Amino acid sequence: MEKTTTASLTAKKTMIGQRLNKPDAPDKATGKTRYINDMVLPQMLIGKVLFAGRPHARIARLDTTAAEKLPGVHAVLTGKDVAGLKFGFVRDNVPLKDKVRCEHDEIAAVAAETEEIAQRALELIEVEYEDLPGVFTPEDGAREGAPQIHDNFPGNKSLHFEFKDGDLAEAEAASDFVVDNVFRPHHVTHCCMGTSCAIADFDHNGKLTIWTQTQYPYNYKMDLAPALGIHPGNIRVIQPPVGGAFGSKLDVYPYEPIAALLAKKTARPVKVMYSREEEFKASPTRQSAIIHMRTGCTRDGTLTFRTADVLMDNGAYTSWGPTIPVVMMRTVSGHYRVPVVDFKAQAIYTNNPYAGSFRGYGNVQAAWATAQQMDMLADLVDIDPLEFHLKNAQKSGEVTPQKSILNECVFVECLETAAAASDYGRKRKEYAAERNKPGRYKKGIGLASSIHNAGGAKIHKSDGIGTILKVDDYARVTVITGASEIGQGIDVVIMMIVAEELGVPPEHVTIVNNDSDIAPWDVGVHASRTTFIAGNGTRRAAQKARAQILNAAARALGELAEDLDLRDGSVVRNRDGAPLLKLERLMRQMHFQPEPELVMVTDYYEPNSEPEGAKYSSNSSAAYSHAVHIAEITVDTLTGEIKVDKVTVAQDVGRVINRMGLEGQIEGGIAIGLGYALSEDMRIEKGMLKNPCFRDYKLITAPEIPTFDLHFIESYCVEGPYGAKGISELPTIVIAPAIANALYNATGVRIFNPPMSPEKVARAIHERRVQATSPDGGVIPS
Amino acid sequence: MEKTTTASLTAKKTMIGQRLNKPDAPDKATGKTRYINDMVLPQMLIGKVLFAGRPHARIARLDTTAAEKLPGVHAVLTGKDVAGLKFGFVRDNVPLKDKVRCEHDEIAAVAAETEEIAQRALELIEVEYEDLPGVFTPEDGAREGAPQIHDNFPGNKSLHFEFKDGDLAEAEAASDFVVDNVFRPHHVTHCCMGTSCAIADFDHNGKLTIWTQTQYPYNYKMDLAPALGIHPGNIRVIQPPVGGAFGSKLDVYPYEPIAALLAKKTARPVKVMYSREEEFKASPTRQSAIIHMRTGCTRDGTLTFRTADVLMDNGAYTSWGPTIPVVMMRTVSGHYRVPVVDFKAQAIYTNNPYAGSFRGYGNVQAAWATAQQMDMLADLVDIDPLEFHLKNAQKSGEVTPQKSILNECVFVECLETAAAASDYGRKRKEYAAERNKPGRYKKGIGLASSIHNAGGAKIHKSDGIGTILKVDDYARVTVITGASEIGQGIDVVIMMIVAEELGVPPEHVTIVNNDSDIAPWDVGVHASRTTFIAGNGTRRAAQKARAQILNAAARALGELAEDLDLRDGSVVRNRDGAPLLKLERLMRQMHFQPEPELVMVTDYYEPNSEPEGAKYSSNSSAAYSHAVHIAEITVDTLTGEIKVDKVTVAQDVGRVINRMGLEGQIEGGIAIGLGYALSEDMRIEKGMLKNPCFRDYKLITAPEIPTFDLHFIESYCVEGPYGAKGISELPTIVIAPAIANALYNATGVRIFNPPMSPEKVARAIHERRVQATSPDGGVIPS
Repeated sequence: MEKTTTASLTAKKTMIGQRLNKPDAPDKATGKTRYINDMVLPQMLIGKVLFAGRPHARIARLDTTAAEKLPGVHAVLTGKDVAGLKFGFVRDNVPLKDKVRCEHDEIAAVAAETEEIAQRALELIEVEYEDLPGVFTPEDGAREGAPQIHDNFPGNKSLHFEFKDGDLAEAEAASDFVVDNVFRPHHVTHCCMGTSCAIADFDHNGKLTIWTQTQYPYNYKMDLAPALGIHPGNIRVIQPPVGGAFGSKLDVYPYEPIAALLAKKTARPVKVMYSREEEFKASPTRQSAIIHMRTGCTRDGTLTFRTADVLMDNGAYTSWGPTIPVVMMRTVSGHYRVPVVDFKAQAIYTNNPYAGSFRGYGNVQAAWATAQQMDMLADLVDIDPLEFHLKNAQKSGEVTPQKSILNECVFVECLETAAAASDYGRKRKEYAAERNKPGRYKKGIGLASSIHNAGGAKIHKSDGIGTILKVDDYARVTVITGASEIGQGIDVVIMMIVAEELGVPPEHVTIVNNDSDIAPWDVGVHASRTTFIAGNGTRRAAQKARAQILNAAARALGELAEDLDLRDGSVVRNRDGAPLLKLERLMRQMHFQPEPELVMVTDYYEPNSEPEGAKYSSNSSAAYSHAVHIAEITVDTLTGEIKVDKVTVAQDVGRVINRMGLEGQIEGGIAIGLGYALSEDMRIEKGMLKNPCFRDYKLITAPEIPTFDLHFIESYCVEGPYGAKGISELPTIVIAPAIANALYNATGVRIFNPPMSPEKVARAIHERRVQATSPDGGVIPS
Repeated sequence: MEKTTTASLTAKKTMIGQRLNKPDAPDKATGKTRYINDMVLPQMLIGKVLFAGRPHARIARLDTTAAEKLPGVHAVLTGKDVAGLKFGFVRDNVPLKDKVRCEHDEIAAVAAETEEIAQRALELIEVEYEDLPGVFTPEDGAREGAPQIHDNFPGNKSLHFEFKDGDLAEAEAASDFVVDNVFRPHHVTHCCMGTSCAIADFDHNGKLTIWTQTQYPYNYKMDLAPALGIHPGNIRVIQPPVGGAFGSKLDVYPYEPIAALLAKKTARPVKVMYSREEEFKASPTRQSAIIHMRTGCTRDGTLTFRTADVLMDNGAYTSWGPTIPVVMMRTVSGHYRVPVVDFKAQAIYTNNPYAGSFRGYGNVQAAWATAQQMDMLADLVDIDPLEFHLKNAQKSGEVTPQKSILNECVFVECLETAAAASDYGRKRKEYAAERNKPGRYKKGIGLASSIHNAGGAKIHKSDGIGTILKVDDYARVTVITGASEIGQGIDVVIMMIVAEELGVPPEHVTIVNNDSDIAPWDVGVHASRTTFIAGNGTRRAAQKARAQILNAAARALGELAEDLDLRDGSVVRNRDGAPLLKLERLMRQMHFQPEPELVMVTDYYEPNSEPEGAKYSSNSSAAYSHAVHIAEITVDTLTGEIKVDKVTVAQDVGRVINRMGLEGQIEGGIAIGLGYALSEDMRIEKGMLKNPCFRDYKLITAPEIPTFDLHFIESYCVEGPYGAKGISELPTIVIAPAIANALYNATGVRIFNPPMSPEKVARAIHERRVQATSPDGGVIPS
């Protein structure tokens, strides 16, 4: 924490905008944190899962007799034990399968005294499969006569989304330039350092306590209950420290009901934890999709329309993941001022691994397309991309076709700041001029941006949060909040807000937010919402406490409450900051007075957004923001390797609350986006994952992290806490197309199917050179 | 739970008075409960303590070099590391000593990787002692020129208490009969099945989390802080399930700061847990005392005065324990209508083990004297003791000399009920007539009673409790309360009260009450207060929630709130019980409506009692109650063995809330009192405990439990929850003198120094026979 050394008595020091460490950081850095993966409960059994290991098959025979007889085995479960326990977004999943639809389908599960016995028991389970012809791309799945994956989903059709606005034919006619490309974003996975893990235990009343990594504990109960055939009220969710979530824990996966069903059968706590290989194979993915996008503009660089026709690889089951088009369409329709929009998305069942949600939630895929097409159109119009972007950038008060209201919009400032800080215009021209000259190493600079909800997303009936705040006799504050800490840093934000309102040191604030029976309702960590929503909830609760305290202080001191403030652990006089009464002393006076009062307040905050609705035409977030990334890269044209030298970021953060947390979220988000852009790739061949290990999956690691130049643009959002907006997804969303645009600037090639691996880049450069020497050279390969 | 089978729609079934299992019972019965003793934290070290093993000595030399060098040892602490860290009721204790004042004085402590290494390290610590002459009785300690135990407590005087009311000389002159005896209640200890245990861990901000067995988590922080030299606000207390407390965990003992100081030094969690032998030697006692009591009455059986001059064995240090005279004096002054009172008590330091608090808290010792003297006086007046008791028993509205206001007093009903149920009058005469006839086995019946606070005890600045109650979207209720569950059964009482007010099944209520950072303030489990205080707090909070829910229901249904009720999980029509709306559905409607509301309420309840005050003249409890025990025994006059055949109890419980819990508390309390009366005895010889094991200590066990005939007299206390009063200490208090009176009835002998062991009883009977055959025979031995 920064300290002001020369503050006068009168100066009120604000916490907002300071740099504070996360309270969980020291324990994590020193190895003291006890993750769920480390947990052991008394009498706990180990559960293990038998995976199908093939993409599509009938189970001809399944014999668990030998496994059941193995000493130390307490339970063996198969599909016949879970008949009817349907779960998932369209209730197409079961904890244990009676038919194989993807490689990691759960065929049987055992609970045993030790992991070794459990493993041996799995080996004793006899299964005979009859393989079926599979479907491995959404095009194949959608084809007439394709093998059916679920009997009750004809044509392998899972989810369908559509949004249209304006007269497309007219807009097309008015367009001087149209870009028309097919983008093929690929499968990646979250790679949480803590592998998937759940521990389940039932009490004698049939109430389940599940220790799990979920990031949405309240609706999780609703989603888990049908997989167990119990009432969601009979589920208590406890969230021990998690080793990463990034959206992956916004769903129920079969290992969770499996742990619970084994616990129910054995009347013992059961832990199911994946190995790294199991984690790669069985945990969710970011959806791959085929995005056919067209964008038009006039000769003067005014956008005329944008269409997107999206075919998503749903995988074998439908989680929350395939709802990403809800977010995609807001980018397609709202990324720059687009007067006419036509968006369609269809999720098609395949025998591939299936998706969960993943930071960026559809916007990663959408922005990959939109931000490249913006660059391509600027090229066609032949103006500097910055100028093209500025021309089409929305300003405060504009409303998108989907009715998103862009209050406090500083997109233009973001564009100008990033461009100025990186000397974008000069470098872009210079590098483009170098492009066709000899030389192995080429530099490139690329600009990309996107829009994202920054004030929650009302996709449920409520986007709110409950908060309970109490101050004890020592002026120590406890905040019981629905907001989960999954490593993103909400706890320190809450501590700072309480410190700001109550004038206590942030370390005097305890956060209680990992037990669904204790903490009040919240919709979960998603949609970049937590600082916005929980920040508001905390601030409102703290302000109620503040009012109660100042009123009591006023009575005790014979002053007016409005003449008093809370600073540095004391009640002070507002006008000169003179300390009048220690806060902890006041708390005891309030407690021990003849009419005793304890400070215990509650608050429920619901943002002023509108429900998403079936027509997708509502102001579904209480705020929106933009980020601009400018990537500077060096391309080895021989090997195709892209080195990202520097990333300049200008992002509308509303208001900085914890500067350190902001930096961490933006840098961490970009790291995920870099992996997506450059190296990470689930190599799925006929439904089988070929690279289920870090050696072959190629996560981005510390040495590959570029220099960052971060600019936080403060738009002072009226609805946000102290003006703050949600910020955490945009960094992951924007970096990949910025690099793609830089790659074009450096080499003249475009990659539409990430990652931009050395192999692909080298091949593309080679092909461009071949084309460049041909009669119709210079065309952008598509 | 009892079920009503023929309830009509209109009948509102009440929870109050039902029989419910404790929610922790099944796990305890099946061995699933994870007590603090079972807990293991990651990186946890084991702490062990080197005890002096002698009662009074100077430490001439202390060398820990070898212990420190032992591999696996992380820290060794001695008295020089804790200089100035004074704690205890008069700040006369330190975590580690620089002088020996009792056998279990803590000389050094180590933290090591394993218990074995820690034990070996203790053996490597070299200590040379110079023994000092000791003081082993309070008389010896009070004597002029006695060895001084603490330099700053001259004359070995610890605490002093006095209360006088009325003209003693006049009362004595008006007395026709006076009994004058010296009672010598002995040392016993709590014998918790879970031995003393604490685990301490500091975070990087210097905040201590201590997992401990305390039954007063909030003031515990205040008591522990000076032993560590930290601010009490920097302590978080977590209470895992405890294997018994019975008052013993109402204080800070050296092992707790030792665990914390070792944790601080090693920056690792440290667990200190006593072996059973250590537990016997180092855990607290019930005070031994020398009570010189005189009681007078007139010829018609009207009490005239009572005096008590008490010399207490303080032991080597002053815990909260020696404040028991505050309770003793209320029995001396308020047990029956006593117009004139003179009470004095002095605690004298000795080199014996020292006391903690123990269920009954001074009243066990006081009632041992008062209830025997009542029996003796009845004998002198020569009327049936019942008649004598009834003549002097207070009635509703009477005020004791100390200003205790006996509202809703049903003492007479208790006396009459117990006597009638046991056929006391007839049996007493019959057994007395048999007393001097031949025969080895003699039957006896004895009546005893006492008064106790039953509505808390305002010995701190507040006797209140904070409660937070929330109802979730599934109509599951969470109560966050300051009331600790230490096995006494408060959780089920809270569940029943919530069920009563909100019409939900009790198992739908989760109690959160084991973490001082989460739960609001409460003074702790003592003074039989928890059902009264926490019951009121819970009821008030539940009624606030009920009002909010009924108002919302009224709006939703277009009804008046007063026409609605909550029953069986639904909003129902009051007049006919017709269900109108599922409660969980209403909760979701309230949450998802345009003006959303969650049910989250807070309450702080402070009883209407008065602070104890330095003059001990105030109505310090919000209620008082009485219990009458009638013990029926068979005495083997040859061996002196007393077999308790039956105990008839009539106790003013105010109102039965959980009938099963009441039975359990009364039967369990009597079991403790039976051990005190008959067998338990710390054999302390020159400060050294000679029987530190269950074989020699002789706890009462299941086969010795008599038949119980329990009568709950419901006085409907206006201030109590549903009329209930606190009940848990009286059972332990009353049984011993009831047996003593029965022993007199059976044999004509009285024992003044418990336990009434076979050896003492046989000797007394023998001596009486010798006296009976002497010229002045028939005198009661004293």
